[in-house]
Amino acid sequence: MFLKIIRLLLFSLLLTKNILAIQDSSKTNFIIIFVDDMGYGDLGVFGHPTIQTPNLDQMAYEGQKWTQFYSAASVCTPSRAALLTGRLPIRSGMASDINRVLFPDSVNGLPSYELTLSEILKEKGYKTAAIGKWHLGHKKEFLPTNNGFDYYYGIPYSNDMDAINNFNYWDQYKGEELNSKNYNVPLIKNTSVIERPVDQTTITKRYTKEAINFIKENKKESFFLYVAHNLPHIPLYASKKFLGKSKRGLYGDVIQEIDYGVGQIIKVLKKLKIDKNTIVVFTSDNGPWLPFKTHGGSAGLLKEGKGTTWEGGMRVPAIFWSPSNIKPAIISDTGSTMDLFSTFISIAGGQIPTDRIIDGFDITKTLFDLKRTDREVTYFYRGTQLYALRYKNYKAHFITQEAYTLNNKKMIHEIPLLYDLENDPSEKYNISSKNKDVIDKIRSIVLIHNSNMIKGKNQLINRKLIN
Amino acid sequence: MFLKIIRLLLFSLLLTKNILAIQDSSKTNFIIIFVDDMGYGDLGVFGHPTIQTPNLDQMAYEGQKWTQFYSAASVCTPSRAALLTGRLPIRSGMASDINRVLFPDSVNGLPSYELTLSEILKEKGYKTAAIGKWHLGHKKEFLPTNNGFDYYYGIPYSNDMDAINNFNYWDQYKGEELNSKNYNVPLIKNTSVIERPVDQTTITKRYTKEAINFIKENKKESFFLYVAHNLPHIPLYASKKFLGKSKRGLYGDVIQEIDYGVGQIIKVLKKLKIDKNTIVVFTSDNGPWLPFKTHGGSAGLLKEGKGTTWEGGMRVPAIFWSPSNIKPAIISDTGSTMDLFSTFISIAGGQIPTDRIIDGFDITKTLFDLKRTDREVTYFYRGTQLYALRYKNYKAHFITQEAYTLNNKKMIHEIPLLYDLENDPSEKYNISSKNKDVIDKIRSIVLIHNSNMIKGKNQLINRKLIN
Repeated sequence: MFLKIIRLLLFSLLLTKNILAIQDSSKTNFIIIFVDDMGYGDLGVFGHPTIQTPNLDQMAYEGQKWTQFYSAASVCTPSRAALLTGRLPIRSGMASDINRVLFPDSVNGLPSYELTLSEILKEKGYKTAAIGKWHLGHKKEFLPTNNGFDYYYGIPYSNDMDAINNFNYWDQYKGEELNSKNYNVPLIKNTSVIERPVDQTTITKRYTKEAINFIKENKKESFFLYVAHNLPHIPLYASKKFLGKSKRGLYGDVIQEIDYGVGQIIKVLKKLKIDKNTIVVFTSDNGPWLPFKTHGGSAGLLKEGKGTTWEGGMRVPAIFWSPSNIKPAIISDTGSTMDLFSTFISIAGGQIPTDRIIDGFDITKTLFDLKRTDREVTYFYRGTQLYALRYKNYKAHFITQEAYTLNNKKMIHEIPLLYDLENDPSEKYNISSKNKDVIDKIRSIVLIHNSNMIKGKNQLINRKLIN
Repeated sequence: MFLKIIRLLLFSLLLTKNILAIQDSSKTNFIIIFVDDMGYGDLGVFGHPTIQTPNLDQMAYEGQKWTQFYSAASVCTPSRAALLTGRLPIRSGMASDINRVLFPDSVNGLPSYELTLSEILKEKGYKTAAIGKWHLGHKKEFLPTNNGFDYYYGIPYSNDMDAINNFNYWDQYKGEELNSKNYNVPLIKNTSVIERPVDQTTITKRYTKEAINFIKENKKESFFLYVAHNLPHIPLYASKKFLGKSKRGLYGDVIQEIDYGVGQIIKVLKKLKIDKNTIVVFTSDNGPWLPFKTHGGSAGLLKEGKGTTWEGGMRVPAIFWSPSNIKPAIISDTGSTMDLFSTFISIAGGQIPTDRIIDGFDITKTLFDLKRTDREVTYFYRGTQLYALRYKNYKAHFITQEAYTLNNKKMIHEIPLLYDLENDPSEKYNISSKNKDVIDKIRSIVLIHNSNMIKGKNQLINRKLIN
């Protein structure tokens, strides 16, 4: 009996050695899984009571859960521009006060002079793919294949655009079976439309499948894979296997299908023995779209949601995973989706552009060595205007505004509202009157920031605005 | 080299065998760690961004995190009566509409004819101790030692009672050093006052130390240990080691000191090799006391807090841990603090009383085998009145009322407010108009419940009320 156990143990040891030998530590793959409109509170590991996300929970346990991680905008297009360029969207002109995002009749996209993470990694020999929502320009010259991605498969903008008829949003969920025929949304492969309207009921599943195919095909290469799910942005759809499975209704079904897909990706990485060579990041483009009630997500204990510069609009769940590289921890330092740009280029041995301002920080030392991040300042823009600024634990709101109510008038605060986000994460208790020194410091940061700001030409224009 | 490894492995195997042999599976110890006014959202594993609770997070990962677990009342005394009797507090008379809890001038306590968990376990040969807050009567005949506990060490009621002078709550935190001299609160050992006013700055530490002493002294016995921290009920205090350590301010320091204590308890169980014979439960007596701002906790995504029958008042974090007995999982079935009574008696092989109504359910099959719980109904009493009722995923509010505002008038709802708590955990979207059948069903449950209800004589009276 004992001998048998020893044999087994020896065999395991050999096997382990073998695995380590196969994994080549000289290259690191990057996978960004980016979801749409998922709130800070919508994962099990971020405290949701009834959405089950065992795969993401496990990733967080084995890796790092970041609890003060921000997207660079509270809506889609600017958030994605920032993610891929490492720059505040106002610099690239991908932020505007009239159209807050790109629409099907928009004529522009991410300017060609902007450098994307994919372009830089591609130059370093990486194989690159974008699967899913793009929303940085749907004309051919703006598509992923013209922005450093070898391959694209996805919907070029939001899944609620191209609505065929004006109809009550909720009506479509009354029928017997879900279908997405009311939205004439295209599915694009590289630069060609291959399905229109796309069947959205299977889109999450198909994105995961495409991601896995790409991983398998490039297992011997260094690769950068950007999986940007269109969901849980409304309209919500889940495939049959997940429909009705979550206690949290259709919204929960959607998240659980995404979570399942994440699990499939992790599984294939392990099977191909490239898990230790791969960094997987999961995060969201902005907060939950609250007017859609139970079809929108939850910001948990944070205030407000998508479209606003309150925490619920821009603080997003973030999980970093890479076994034996990323040190398991809960990180409550501030981070930003823009940091992925600087960090991944740094890890890949690439050159962070020096001919332009980059707003991302390299957080490698936090991921690998649990050192403190360098970020002290986080900017909260709405369109082209700086509404709020976080300095260390303090956040000052110069302007506040609701996002989707009828009377969403600007409230300008001569003396900014000030919150200690670490002691008061729900932004409940204004402490401006007792912290004039902090406000002065923040005002001085704003002055310097503004004096160095070169705003890009507005790219979020549509035909109407041109004519 | 290989031989050395084999020797090491063999040694580990022998060691493991030895550990297993020492652990006697015929008996199970129970430890309930009960905290005061901690909200649903105040632990890392329940989504708090800046309170670090590594020990409780680890317990949840290794054990079960229950996400729809309720205390039986939204304030202290009735919640504790229910925990120890397995009965709604209205049955024992430990709930009242005038005084909602016991005060220093109260004359009564838990009636002697009520059977406590400790009394039943003691009869089964268990060694029993209550460490911490009692709040079920501070006169000698009502103290723990007259309620089935061999040993008591703690403060008999809330730590903000016996305020010596009327003073502004926040003033005491302006000084150089924290002290608790403004509250003439006694510390009792068994039935004798040993310190008055008790030094509250070290009370959490001392409770943990007492708990560990009790465990060490009774390591060869079956034991039931009830550790009821007075904190994070206001006034807040932490010992020097934890003061200023949390990003969440003093409230976070307090939780982190409690978490550290939980870790110490787990450590000693492992060291004494009785961890696999012990079930540890961690939960809270009610939701966060919101009027105390940053000195109160957070209910996370739940509505309102302490004192109310909204979810934030009565849904509490709950973690069950017992290595190799309790199956790791996130459980979103409903549970109640009253279930501990029935479950622990069942596991100990005791007899659940049949001469009275017991409201607790035996959840052993969920803890050990991941089977569904039997609970379909949860009652939300405020004092002696049934304000709301949860049936499956639906919660109907017949009456709503704020707790600590000046005009906290009762709102009576002829047609109850109805929420789907699993799809809408924040109780935002009233769905009563479309679910008349559910309301009818709930009304019928209320009728049966009321017709069987024998309310206990009000025990929460004080001298003034007698005179």
